[in-house]
Amino acid sequence: MDNLSGNSISVGLLGCGVVGAGVAKLLAQNGDLIASRIGMEIKLAKAADINPDAVADLNLADGVYTNDAMDVINDPTIPIIVELIGGQGIAKDFVLAALNKGKTVVTANKALIAAYRDEIAEACEKSGADFLFEASVGGCMPVIKSLRESLVSNKVDSIFGILNGTCNYILTQITQEGMPFDQALAQAQELGFAEADPTLDVEGMDTVHKLALSVALAFGTRVNYKEIYVDGITRITPLDITIAAEFGYSVKLLAIAKNHGDFVEARVHPTMISHDNLLSSVGRNMNAVKIVGDAVGEMVLYGAGAGMMPTASAVVGDIVDAARNIQLGCHPRIPAFSYQPAAIRELPLMPMDELVSRYYVRFSALDRPGVLSKVSGVLAKYSISIASVHQKGRHTEGPVPIVMLTHEAKEANIRKALEEVGSLDVIAEAPMLIRIEDENQE
Amino acid sequence: MDNLSGNSISVGLLGCGVVGAGVAKLLAQNGDLIASRIGMEIKLAKAADINPDAVADLNLADGVYTNDAMDVINDPTIPIIVELIGGQGIAKDFVLAALNKGKTVVTANKALIAAYRDEIAEACEKSGADFLFEASVGGCMPVIKSLRESLVSNKVDSIFGILNGTCNYILTQITQEGMPFDQALAQAQELGFAEADPTLDVEGMDTVHKLALSVALAFGTRVNYKEIYVDGITRITPLDITIAAEFGYSVKLLAIAKNHGDFVEARVHPTMISHDNLLSSVGRNMNAVKIVGDAVGEMVLYGAGAGMMPTASAVVGDIVDAARNIQLGCHPRIPAFSYQPAAIRELPLMPMDELVSRYYVRFSALDRPGVLSKVSGVLAKYSISIASVHQKGRHTEGPVPIVMLTHEAKEANIRKALEEVGSLDVIAEAPMLIRIEDENQE
Repeated sequence: MDNLSGNSISVGLLGCGVVGAGVAKLLAQNGDLIASRIGMEIKLAKAADINPDAVADLNLADGVYTNDAMDVINDPTIPIIVELIGGQGIAKDFVLAALNKGKTVVTANKALIAAYRDEIAEACEKSGADFLFEASVGGCMPVIKSLRESLVSNKVDSIFGILNGTCNYILTQITQEGMPFDQALAQAQELGFAEADPTLDVEGMDTVHKLALSVALAFGTRVNYKEIYVDGITRITPLDITIAAEFGYSVKLLAIAKNHGDFVEARVHPTMISHDNLLSSVGRNMNAVKIVGDAVGEMVLYGAGAGMMPTASAVVGDIVDAARNIQLGCHPRIPAFSYQPAAIRELPLMPMDELVSRYYVRFSALDRPGVLSKVSGVLAKYSISIASVHQKGRHTEGPVPIVMLTHEAKEANIRKALEEVGSLDVIAEAPMLIRIEDENQE
Repeated sequence: MDNLSGNSISVGLLGCGVVGAGVAKLLAQNGDLIASRIGMEIKLAKAADINPDAVADLNLADGVYTNDAMDVINDPTIPIIVELIGGQGIAKDFVLAALNKGKTVVTANKALIAAYRDEIAEACEKSGADFLFEASVGGCMPVIKSLRESLVSNKVDSIFGILNGTCNYILTQITQEGMPFDQALAQAQELGFAEADPTLDVEGMDTVHKLALSVALAFGTRVNYKEIYVDGITRITPLDITIAAEFGYSVKLLAIAKNHGDFVEARVHPTMISHDNLLSSVGRNMNAVKIVGDAVGEMVLYGAGAGMMPTASAVVGDIVDAARNIQLGCHPRIPAFSYQPAAIRELPLMPMDELVSRYYVRFSALDRPGVLSKVSGVLAKYSISIASVHQKGRHTEGPVPIVMLTHEAKEANIRKALEEVGSLDVIAEAPMLIRIEDENQE
């Protein structure tokens, strides 16, 4: 394959949306800088998009644009294919076609990897292709590189991630401005921090995709992302966040994974974390990941988890790794999923019912005598012991909030208890539950 | 060279102190885990220390220990030499000898690299050896890997680092417990967070070594570390920290570097940073580095900056990178100092006098009428405008503190002003100065 023409290496781009355009811009803008570091030019040889307008602002040289992705994949002078189409549809065929040809694939597509991990791994194994996906988790931050390279000697014990900028922006706005969810979402959409259809983000699925991938790399296992417990942020109210703050907690959409040796705990939900926890200071649309390993202890990475140029930075970092490997003839250099294929273990996911956690529960109660006694009676029945109660003043005509923080309890019990409490005639609406993560208590 | 015996690669260790012992332990303890990731065994083939007692607890196999480092360097079956002797003395000869033989060198020795950068670069260029030093800056965190790899497409604009765990521990204790410097240092020594001779740490030189290295990798230039402005933490008092907190600031020993295009700003000193700044939440003996790049924006890495196992984790990460490169025959893979040697520019350091900053100044004044007028008169003479004044109550017999926060002023002017104020007969001791870093105001 004629990969290296003089001292340059050719890259083909599939998808010229926001991130794709960012990659083209970054290669153009900082091409000299990159060459001064790596000693060769990264040349954008072909860029495919079904929509020619997508490349209108990119000043591509003649012949670079094509509307056919297979033109790029089949070009024998292009050893590096960058997939930035996204989603679980056509991107899959392109990625597998490129890998099957032994071409290095760089992608930011967590949804694709979560769904087709096995097919991708098999294609990599057969052809010896490198598969790089730094931008798929945590945007600009080296989460993948840390798990595959820097922390290679660590048994990773746990991962805690704020992995979705849209959710973190919305939660920050609810916290700082006291605005309700819908208004915060609308504002995030206006500012371009949220998609027109924000479902994948606010329901937590985007975070699940990223967690599944992180778990695979960290623990050396396969996870069916569809089995990971997920709860989004749509029900979080300013009231919950205000009360949480009074107890010394922030509310974050957290991806949590723990390595229990012969099983894996993985879950995504709104989580109360102490103000002492560095992750509680992560505001706006920023992301952060805390990785706990047996040798490193706690390590945190913080940065922009999305956005044109931060994501492009991660993609180009991968392109450069790929270019170095191809120039030196050393690929595959690192197993796609961090472990040797034969060493990857099948580990069951812990059923959510078995979780032991502390809980914040808010009941919307009619203001009548004996309510507290009824509610706490139900909790006691399910062996849930209450650490503190917070009852808002009786200023309103309607239902009043009763908030309880529990001691450690079993998820199965708290769910049954909440169902029973919810059916009491003094309770006006379905109770609100937020899990509390106290790392120091583990 | 018989590097790969079966599916293993041999490593030679020079120096079995705390970090060296940690590396031996980590390779033993997590050897299977590492092999399951990289597909080969990392074998500690030889370990040298002048003191045989150093290896007493390491359960080394027969024939591994030697008291002669050159035994290790000259062993043709060992392609990776890990230098953990430290310091600028004999370690230099060993590192250069190994590089000159074309062996990959892994080290944590920032003092050595700061002093002998040119000799090391020359040896690497001549022999094509890989030179890896992740553990030299920020302990377990991937600072070096981020600068050399992940951020390769970024023009790095600035770096802000808390790079010395001893100093950060002491400052945290002064802040949280109100203890004076000497007592906090003694406690740090008792807990093993500070050396018996803490001079390199508390005077800031260790941080300077790390900053010089970071500047070289980030900006593609050579810096003479001896020319970097440095001021340690020995004069910081609980009073300063208390007053800073009242103004909304933490005090940290910060390494600061900014890329001004045709010159470089680099300095190490106690710095007031806003409580909004993520770095202000970095407590205990932890380290953190904020890197600002044109594509990524702000990225922060946080973790243990020292200690046996965190540092060993970074060293073993490098060993694994080296092993992968040797196994695949692809070294040198990344230029030692991030840029191609021919692309490294000579950039002058900005003279400290030209710094423009906001300042915290504390005067110890005799409690007499007209003092404030005299002091502010001197500041006005040097065009230093005062943003706020804080005068502590007159409860004591002795001198009273007057604290001023200035607007932006030139370092040369503030120094002249403080000298003049210090010579006033109403001023009891040399004024205290702390620079304020307001990133948002830049």
